Amino acid sequence: MSRLVLGIQPAREAVRAKGAAIERLLVEDGAGPKLEALARFARDQGIAVEIVARRELDRLAAGGRHQGVIVLAPDLRLESLDRLEVGPSAVVVALDGVMDPQNFGAVVRSAVALGATAIVWPEHASAPLSPAMFRASAGAIEHATLCRVGSLPDALEALSARGVSTIVLDAQGPQSLGELDLTGPVAIVIGAEDKGARRAVRRACRHAARLPMPGPIASLNASVAGAIALYEILRQRRAVGQK
Amino acid sequence: MSRLVLGIQPAREAVRAKGAAIERLLVEDGAGPKLEALARFARDQGIAVEIVARRELDRLAAGGRHQGVIVLAPDLRLESLDRLEVGPSAVVVALDGVMDPQNFGAVVRSAVALGATAIVWPEHASAPLSPAMFRASAGAIEHATLCRVGSLPDALEALSARGVSTIVLDAQGPQSLGELDLTGPVAIVIGAEDKGARRAVRRACRHAARLPMPGPIASLNASVAGAIALYEILRQRRAVGQK
Repeated sequence: MSRLVLGIQPAREAVRAKGAAIERLLVEDGAGPKLEALARFARDQGIAVEIVARRELDRLAAGGRHQGVIVLAPDLRLESLDRLEVGPSAVVVALDGVMDPQNFGAVVRSAVALGATAIVWPEHASAPLSPAMFRASAGAIEHATLCRVGSLPDALEALSARGVSTIVLDAQGPQSLGELDLTGPVAIVIGAEDKGARRAVRRACRHAARLPMPGPIASLNASVAGAIALYEILRQRRAVGQK
Repeated sequence: MSRLVLGIQPAREAVRAKGAAIERLLVEDGAGPKLEALARFARDQGIAVEIVARRELDRLAAGGRHQGVIVLAPDLRLESLDRLEVGPSAVVVALDGVMDPQNFGAVVRSAVALGATAIVWPEHASAPLSPAMFRASAGAIEHATLCRVGSLPDALEALSARGVSTIVLDAQGPQSLGELDLTGPVAIVIGAEDKGARRAVRRACRHAARLPMPGPIASLNASVAGAIALYEILRQRRAVGQK
């Protein structure tokens, strides 16, 4: 079955990440130079490009914002937890209760740009994969290693048993994230903005750590919290000459 | 003239930040416990609370999402650049070309939570102040020191002359942000996601610095980039025992 990817940036990233595995790229008749460049790029990868009428794209997008281009891409490949590579430099980002596709996509975008090696989330406590989420990730999801699990606490215990340091971000955490050693394999758990991670998820983590928030409001968007954590990981690793 | 603040979280932050300076809080008749608590909180601050019909809120909101509450607040106070305090711990966040109210609001939210002391932006190259932006900031804008300037390059030169280290975030910057000394007064300049800061703005800055982006996509949301920069500032200052 094929998956629709709508919009210029998501389509471009799908082509970059999946190349000839893309079935087709549909582009609007008489589109501007940006879309022409994208169509050329796709053809160079051996992808079939079809010029279609705008109403055909509208029909396929069924209300989604397509910006004149739709890619028919293979389904996103989901990795199983036990096949996830968790070598010495692994950085797993786990999402718990992030139900909004915009937020979920934004976390994926930051995570991919900042070098996360996998994204893990529980099937029943997360936004479903959708064109809106692909777009919110600015196409970054095409490059990500994705792992959807039945139980996030079980997944965290399993990662922990494999030597991964599991850390939940928690404004009430006993230490700040920068005080933890993040140079080994780590999993950073990000909860919903209002409630944080669920209790069972927090309990399954080895550490709870807070981010500094000296200002008059004490809440960060999930993608911002995740990005700060990933930055701190990169920083520590570079400081010890690891990357 | 009064300003409408729509939605639970923006309304709550307006009450927290402005207290008795708020003119009125309008709350929907028969609202739930969340709104009742907010109404009580407002009354405790000496604010007049009016119970109104939903259609009255709809009429005032004129299509905006009000969630059963509207605050009539004083206009946001704008500080003039030369009255901006730029003491040794000043952290100015300057936005250039962030035209989307969602992105602008998101930057304000991160900046306030992470302790920025002022937000500066050029009148003609930024999203206008609006209820959508107040909401996107999760109400954080109520707590911010705001400074709208005619020319951002001129403002940066003036800050520089007052001893502020002006740094533009730039993926092509010659050094990474962490290599700069951020323990003195700083201004971090964040440009539009696609094009970065304008050339004249970049030229007006003392430094251009990049953030680490080891992943397969090399772009971060403006609020994420700003948050990482503010985190690095906090980190350096705490490392030298400053805060």
